[in-house]
Amino acid sequence: RINGDRLWDSLMEMARIGPGVAGGNNRQTLTDADAEGRALFLSWCEAAGCTMGLDSLGNMFARREGTDPEALPVYVGSHLDTQPTGGKYDGVLGVLGGLEVIRTLNDLGIRTKHPIVVTNWTNEEGTRFAPAMLASGVFAGVHEQDWAEDRRDAEGKRFGDELDRIGWRGEEPVGARKMRAFFELHIEQGPILEAQGKDIGVVTHGQGLSWTQVTITGKESHTGSTPMPMRRNAGLGMARVLEKVEEIALSHAPHAVGAAGHIEVFPNSRNVIPGKAVFTVDFRSPDLAVIQDMETRLKAAATEICEAMGLEVAFEKAGGFDPVEFDETCVEAVRNAAERLGYSHMNIVSGAGHDACWINRVAPTAMVMCPCVGGLSHNEAEEISRDWAAAGTDVLMHAVVETAEI
Amino acid sequence: RINGDRLWDSLMEMARIGPGVAGGNNRQTLTDADAEGRALFLSWCEAAGCTMGLDSLGNMFARREGTDPEALPVYVGSHLDTQPTGGKYDGVLGVLGGLEVIRTLNDLGIRTKHPIVVTNWTNEEGTRFAPAMLASGVFAGVHEQDWAEDRRDAEGKRFGDELDRIGWRGEEPVGARKMRAFFELHIEQGPILEAQGKDIGVVTHGQGLSWTQVTITGKESHTGSTPMPMRRNAGLGMARVLEKVEEIALSHAPHAVGAAGHIEVFPNSRNVIPGKAVFTVDFRSPDLAVIQDMETRLKAAATEICEAMGLEVAFEKAGGFDPVEFDETCVEAVRNAAERLGYSHMNIVSGAGHDACWINRVAPTAMVMCPCVGGLSHNEAEEISRDWAAAGTDVLMHAVVETAEI
Ligand SMILES: NC(=O)NCCC(=O)O
Ligand SMILES: NC(=O)NCCC(=O)O
Repeated sequence: RINGDRLWDSLMEMARIGPGVAGGNNRQTLTDADAEGRALFLSWCEAAGCTMGLDSLGNMFARREGTDPEALPVYVGSHLDTQPTGGKYDGVLGVLGGLEVIRTLNDLGIRTKHPIVVTNWTNEEGTRFAPAMLASGVFAGVHEQDWAEDRRDAEGKRFGDELDRIGWRGEEPVGARKMRAFFELHIEQGPILEAQGKDIGVVTHGQGLSWTQVTITGKESHTGSTPMPMRRNAGLGMARVLEKVEEIALSHAPHAVGAAGHIEVFPNSRNVIPGKAVFTVDFRSPDLAVIQDMETRLKAAATEICEAMGLEVAFEKAGGFDPVEFDETCVEAVRNAAERLGYSHMNIVSGAGHDACWINRVAPTAMVMCPCVGGLSHNEAEEISRDWAAAGTDVLMHAVVETAEI
Repeated sequence: RINGDRLWDSLMEMARIGPGVAGGNNRQTLTDADAEGRALFLSWCEAAGCTMGLDSLGNMFARREGTDPEALPVYVGSHLDTQPTGGKYDGVLGVLGGLEVIRTLNDLGIRTKHPIVVTNWTNEEGTRFAPAMLASGVFAGVHEQDWAEDRRDAEGKRFGDELDRIGWRGEEPVGARKMRAFFELHIEQGPILEAQGKDIGVVTHGQGLSWTQVTITGKESHTGSTPMPMRRNAGLGMARVLEKVEEIALSHAPHAVGAAGHIEVFPNSRNVIPGKAVFTVDFRSPDLAVIQDMETRLKAAATEICEAMGLEVAFEKAGGFDPVEFDETCVEAVRNAAERLGYSHMNIVSGAGHDACWINRVAPTAMVMCPCVGGLSHNEAEEISRDWAAAGTDVLMHAVVETAEI
């Protein structure tokens, strides 16, 4: 069993970096706070006897040697970046849980045949730079590195420039590593495990995602002196499309979800009818056909709405991935571990995207989930219990050790 | 007759300060560009033999002495600040038209009995600091000066601090001046004069305005892993309220307008269901009862929508003024001037708010309007013709001279 108190203390110490405004965190990717969090993680890994690798997108790889240095390493990890108003556990538990596995193996003097590597993937959240899971996506060959480095934040700053600025660009080529397996521990971010009273979610699948950025163009004009019939109100067009997003997602309930978290109007002045509205629609489903249907209907509905209002509309794919089926052997290792340790468990489909969803394309992959209070995540009030964290990390350790062989 | 070419050249020279991105201007109040525009205006006024007064909210008063220095001055003017994506004429024409009146009287060697004062009112637009017409409102005793100085922009900067920063705070108490009359020349910002083929709008009334800031609070949560029935999506609530704004305004057509130009969601992240939406509803009508009805119905509709969705809603008055009836004598002076000069004219109700709407409370006031192309304003493409500008300024001069007496 891992040391639950040590794990918890590390979680709390990391949470002091990039504090939020309501008890959570704002440690967005490639900010000064991100750099500080990375430095703390590095110091912990070195203290645990690991050597740190760093690739040219800032992905961190803390390696604990195996008895057979030629053997392919078993990877564990997740991400240390957070949402702007994020929780203390989303991603962080997976990284520090991986570190706790190493610390525990050190305590017990256990050497595995295969090396174990704990990773911190850069820009998982995708808030500052879309899309989410950016650096693991490049690692898995889904995105080009140049394209990734050219992503821009809301202020127009380039991903690549910000990576250089915080000083966490390494020399190792991205994606050069081969993995025996990859395991990611993560909080569920949804209500199922807690409601079912299960300690562990054995993640068999991940639902797919589609991000469509919609740009509606009308005509800026005066809110007072422009007669109603002359208006081309892009903000009102957006409102009507947002209603359709809800309707489309609900039509596939409970096998789909949909919402827009990113919404902007221009010039955003109280007395100017919005001449432009830009927003990103997030549709998800475990079923690829459902995702495609929602995308198609969104475009049709938005086009019809905008045509009727004299508005123009354009669509751009801002991110996405197909539904994922995790590796049977790795999933089995997670289930066996939970069983062996006596934790209650159930199969679950991940509602969120994770680095594991991309790594699954280049290595046998599985995920361990633990419950979170009220299913709440992407909120500073995100909460888990010490026992849930410990149980998840126990299962992670056993799955990793089984795969890394003693 | 005024010198139309000189007026036009000055308009174009001022438009070089704080250029926009599409041929218009971004010279928002209390920015460096505002300071630069003020300095240019000051240099022109001094060259025209005026002495500049400056009050403690940055309102500028360029005075041309009268033959009777004891006589109350006739005031003309408007504002030099612009929208973030504003035109070259909104406000600027009224200030530089006032200057052109003085330059023409200088050319002709005409001295009036009453002094003439050209004003530049601070923060008319109200984009950076709500409400609009802020400093003229304090001048007219509508707002407290301390309250005005405490207004904050989107970055949290205080109005008073920004005024000090740009170095345009004077020592004169705000509102100390008494006026014989106030005349404001402004572009219509609507389509009526152009459609009717009239050179001049004799503004008899101004429609009233109500700005209600609506804050909807839901719960931030993950867009992927939060089941649809558990969502409290503040952005969707906002969308439904925006639809009601349109419906309420249309129910009073053509005697009312309504829209929201200012819209924000928090934390504004693609994969976070908005936990908060803040937007400002702008309702206008020449009829106070209609404005009140729209306000009441907005609150009732938003409350009902939010209750049904498990959202909270709060309302805050962000600005407003009652419908205005301008001074009969001043209005008559404008009409006489147009008639005498042979310009086609018609009575008109101002669709927009103007400094004149506040000054009307403390001095006999009227407005002169000239057409603008396609009724377009609060848009960088705002356009007027040189002839329209000259005609409006001719009428302004004749109304001013009649009131200031030779
Ligand atoms: N786990 C998580 O919140 N990842 C961000 C990507 C997503 O939106 O699903
Ligand atoms: N004239 C003008 O655009 N003033 C701004 C105040 C308003 O919104 O009417």
